[in-house]
Amino acid sequence: MFVLNQWYVAGWDHEIDRAPFARVICGEPIVLYRKFDRSVVALRDACPHRLLPLSLGIREGDNIRCRYHGLLVDGSGHAVEMPDRSDRVHKSICTKAYPTVERHRFVWIWIGDAEKADPARVPDFWPCSHRDWTFDGGYNHLACDYKLVIDNLMDLTHETYVHQGSIGQPEILGAPIATHTEGDQVTVSRWMPGIDAPPFWRNALRRDGPVDRWQICHFLAPSSVIIDVGVAPVDAGATIQSHDQGVRGFVIDALTPESETTSHYFWGMARNFDVEDAGFTARFKKQQGAVFLEDVAILEAQQRSILANPGCKLRDFGIDTGGVRARQIINRLLAAG
Amino acid sequence: MFVLNQWYVAGWDHEIDRAPFARVICGEPIVLYRKFDRSVVALRDACPHRLLPLSLGIREGDNIRCRYHGLLVDGSGHAVEMPDRSDRVHKSICTKAYPTVERHRFVWIWIGDAEKADPARVPDFWPCSHRDWTFDGGYNHLACDYKLVIDNLMDLTHETYVHQGSIGQPEILGAPIATHTEGDQVTVSRWMPGIDAPPFWRNALRRDGPVDRWQICHFLAPSSVIIDVGVAPVDAGATIQSHDQGVRGFVIDALTPESETTSHYFWGMARNFDVEDAGFTARFKKQQGAVFLEDVAILEAQQRSILANPGCKLRDFGIDTGGVRARQIINRLLAAG
Amino acid sequence: MFVLNQWYVAGWDHEIDRAPFARVICGEPIVLYRKFDRSVVALRDACPHRLLPLSLGIREGDNIRCRYHGLLVDGSGHAVEMPDRSDRVHKSICTKAYPTVERHRFVWIWIGDAEKADPARVPDFWPCSHRDWTFDGGYNHLACDYKLVIDNLMDLTHETYVHQGSIGQPEILGAPIATHTEGDQVTVSRWMPGIDAPPFWRNALRRDGPVDRWQICHFLAPSSVIIDVGVAPVDAGATIQSHDQGVRGFVIDALTPESETTSHYFWGMARNFDVEDAGFTARFKKQQGAVFLEDVAILEAQQRSILANPGCKLRDFGIDTGGVRARQIINRLLAAG
Repeated sequence: MFVLNQWYVAGWDHEIDRAPFARVICGEPIVLYRKFDRSVVALRDACPHRLLPLSLGIREGDNIRCRYHGLLVDGSGHAVEMPDRSDRVHKSICTKAYPTVERHRFVWIWIGDAEKADPARVPDFWPCSHRDWTFDGGYNHLACDYKLVIDNLMDLTHETYVHQGSIGQPEILGAPIATHTEGDQVTVSRWMPGIDAPPFWRNALRRDGPVDRWQICHFLAPSSVIIDVGVAPVDAGATIQSHDQGVRGFVIDALTPESETTSHYFWGMARNFDVEDAGFTARFKKQQGAVFLEDVAILEAQQRSILANPGCKLRDFGIDTGGVRARQIINRLLAAG
Repeated sequence: MFVLNQWYVAGWDHEIDRAPFARVICGEPIVLYRKFDRSVVALRDACPHRLLPLSLGIREGDNIRCRYHGLLVDGSGHAVEMPDRSDRVHKSICTKAYPTVERHRFVWIWIGDAEKADPARVPDFWPCSHRDWTFDGGYNHLACDYKLVIDNLMDLTHETYVHQGSIGQPEILGAPIATHTEGDQVTVSRWMPGIDAPPFWRNALRRDGPVDRWQICHFLAPSSVIIDVGVAPVDAGATIQSHDQGVRGFVIDALTPESETTSHYFWGMARNFDVEDAGFTARFKKQQGAVFLEDVAILEAQQRSILANPGCKLRDFGIDTGGVRARQIINRLLAAG
Repeated sequence: MFVLNQWYVAGWDHEIDRAPFARVICGEPIVLYRKFDRSVVALRDACPHRLLPLSLGIREGDNIRCRYHGLLVDGSGHAVEMPDRSDRVHKSICTKAYPTVERHRFVWIWIGDAEKADPARVPDFWPCSHRDWTFDGGYNHLACDYKLVIDNLMDLTHETYVHQGSIGQPEILGAPIATHTEGDQVTVSRWMPGIDAPPFWRNALRRDGPVDRWQICHFLAPSSVIIDVGVAPVDAGATIQSHDQGVRGFVIDALTPESETTSHYFWGMARNFDVEDAGFTARFKKQQGAVFLEDVAILEAQQRSILANPGCKLRDFGIDTGGVRARQIINRLLAAG
C-alpha cells in the first residue's frame, strides 16, 4: 500500500517540540517529541498497556508517561516503569520506535525495517539549509492520494488553468519539455530562452529586459518533488546545466502519505536572492500558500471523482510523461516490498 | 440496482443553463449544460484525461474545457483539443454522453444503452405544458430509496396521519379504492361522491355545496406518479372516466434515483383553474412544499429504520396494493436488465 | 456480540414517561413508554407495517399509533387496529416486545429470550432505593465499547493519572488489592488503614484525624460495577467485611451496550450520610459528572486508538486482574449464547 524502507517527512522542525505531537504516517498513528538533546523520538502512538494514545501522555525528562495508568516509556519505546511501581518491568513491554533524522529544516521518519534506516538516503533538500539561501514554507493536510500531487507537480501545464488567476502563463504551454530518468529520480526540464520575464521574476532580478527562464522538476523517490526555477538575463550565459547567473529558487514539495486517500503536504521555497529580507520571505510564503490552495481544490475534487467513478481510469498523455515515470518508480519500489 | 433504458428527470428546465450543473443520477456523476441552441448536453462528470469533474470546467461555445489541464470536450463527449494543443486528438479520448430531451418543463436523461433512447417513451406529463393549464413546483433531495416515495404516493391513506395538521381528511380513509394495472402503469382510484368539499377545493370551485371528489394515482414506470385530483358539483355529471366539469389538478411527482438510499424528488401541481393567477401559483407552491416536507421527515425516518432493522421486512396490507403493483413492475423491469 | 438473556438498564426512571422514548440497546432500536399503570412498555422501534419508528407515533391510552398509516399497536407489540380500520387484524402482525422491570430507580430491559426473563435476576442495586440512603446520578452516551468502561472501573489506579486534577490520590497506588471471584461477580478490595482522609471524606465524616478507608469494586454480570467506598475513624472497628461505623457510599455504574463501539452509561452515587441534604446531592452529582467526563475523554481516545491500531493488543498487568476476571465472565456468558 505504501512504499516502505524510506524516509518521509514527519514534520517541520518547528512543529515538533518537547510536547507530544501526533501524526498518522503511512497508516500508522505516531507520536513525536524532542528529548533534551533536541533529537526526535518517534513511537507508535499507543501505550503498550491498554493502547491509549501516548500523545495524550505526560512528558517526563526524555520519557513519556501514559495518561491512563501511568506506564512510563522511554525514547526507544520500552517501558521503564510499570503502572504499579512495585511491579518488575519486563523487556517485552514496548511500543514500536521509528528512526528519525532532522535535516534541511524537516524531521524525517523511517517507515519500514528500522535496521535498514540509513541517514545518507534522506532526500537531498540542500537549498533548504544552505547558508547562502533562504527557506520557508507551510503545511497542508490533503484529502487525496499523494500520487495525485506528484502527477500535478511533474506537469506544470496545469498552471495555465488551475492558476489562471495567479501564476498561470501561456508561454509555459508552448515550451518543449525534456524528460530524463536516472535511478529513483525523474527530471522534467523546460527551457524558455529569450522571453519576457513575468512580474515576479522581473522583480526578483531587479531589471527589465529579455531573460532565459527555466523550470526543472525533480522527482525524488518516494514522494518529493523539487522544482528548480528562475531566470537569467539573456546575455548571461545560463544553460540548462548551469544557471546561477541570475535569480534562482527551489520549490520544495514533500509529500507524506497519511492513508490511501489522504496525505501531508510540506511545501516551501528556497531562494538565493533577497536572502536577508524577512518581509519578502513572509510575503512570498503567503502568496505560495494561496496558490497551493488552488491546487488543493483541484486535487481533492479529482480524488472524489476517482472514488465516484470506479469504472473510469486515468489516461496518460504526452504532458504526463514526468508523472508516469515517477509512478513507474513508485510501483517498482512497491513491488520490491 | 436501477432500472435501465429509461428516461429520468435530470432537472427542471430552469435548473440547467449554460453553466455546468452537476447531479448524480442512478449512481453516475453527470454534468449537464445548455448549448447555444438551448439543447442540453449530459456527460459523465469526469474528464477523460485525469477524471477531474468537468462540472468544474470552463464553458467555451458548445464545448467544455477541463479546469485541470485544459482538455476541451464537445457536447458528444469527444475531445476536440488536447491539453498540449500541438498534440493530435485521438478519437478514443471521450467521456460518456447521455441522450437528453426537454419536455413538459423538465430535462429528461436516458440512463442505459444510448442507442435505445426513444423520445416517444418520455412519460406523458401533458398537463405540465398544456396551454390551458398552469404548472409550477420544486425540488427536494431525499435521503431515501425512491421506491419508498412511490409507496407513499400510491397510498393516500397516509395523509390522515402524516398530514394531520395540513391536508389530512378522515373521509379519505372511508372511501373505497380501485386498483388497475395496464402495461407499465398502475392506477389507484378513489371516488368520493356527494361529500363536503375541503377548504382548498371549495375555494378553487368558488362555491359551497356538495361535490364529487376524486383522487386517481397513476404510477408511470420507472419512477413517476401523477395524481389526478379535483372536485365537481354533484349535479355536474362528473364520472371517474370523465371529470372536467369542475376544477382539476395533477399532482406531479417525478423521482430520480441518486443512490440506493438517496433520490431526487421533482414535484409540482398543474391545474386548470385560476390559470393566469401567478399569486395563486406561488402561494400553492409554498403550501405544497411544506406538505412534502412532512413526507420527507417520515420517508427519511423510514429509510433509517429499514437500515437499522436489517432483520425486519416491510409488510403489505390492502392499502398498499398500488405500491405493491408498482414495485412488481419495477422488479420486472430490473429483471429484464 | 452481546451477552443475551440479561437485564440491562434501559433508562433512568425519570427518562421514560408516557411519550415514546427511543434508545438503541444491544444493537436493537427500541421504543419505551409508560402505560397508565406506570408499567413500562418496550417494543422494537419499527412499525410491523412499513417499519417507520414507532417512537415517532402517537400515544393513545396504553397503545401507540404509527404516524405513517395509523396502525395501532398495544403494549404487547400486537396490532389492535389496521390502517384501513375496516380490515381485520391478523394475530401475526406484531413487533417484538421486551420484558421490563422498574427497580432501584432504573428501568431494566431483558435482552434475549423473553420467556427466560426472571425479575429476581435484576442486579441488586439496593442502596439506590433503600430508605436510609440517598441516590442520584446522570447519564452519558459513550463512543466506546462498554467493556473498556468495566476495565476502567475495576482498576482504580487510573485515578492517579486520569483524575490528577480532581480525585486522584497517590495513596491509592500504594495500597494492596485483593481480588475475589464468585459466580458472575468479581470483587476487588483495597483497604487503606490509618490514613489521612482526603477532603471529601473528612467533610462527610465531619471530623479530622486518621481513618480507615476502603474501595471495594463489585462487577455484576453482564455490565455493572458498584463501588463501595467510605471511611471510618481508626478506632471505630471497621473491617473489610463490615464497615458501617463511618460514612459510606456506593458509586453506581451501569453500562448498556448500544453497539460494539458505543454504549450507554448510567452513573450515580448512593450515600448514607447527609441523606436529607438535597443541596449536597446536587453539588455532588455535578462534581461526579465532571470527574466522569475525564474518564470519557480517555475511554473514547482508547477506543479510537484500538480501531486505528488493528495489529496491537491490550496487555494485562497485575493491576488489571479485576477487569481480566470480569471479561472472563463476559466471555463465558457470550460462549454460552
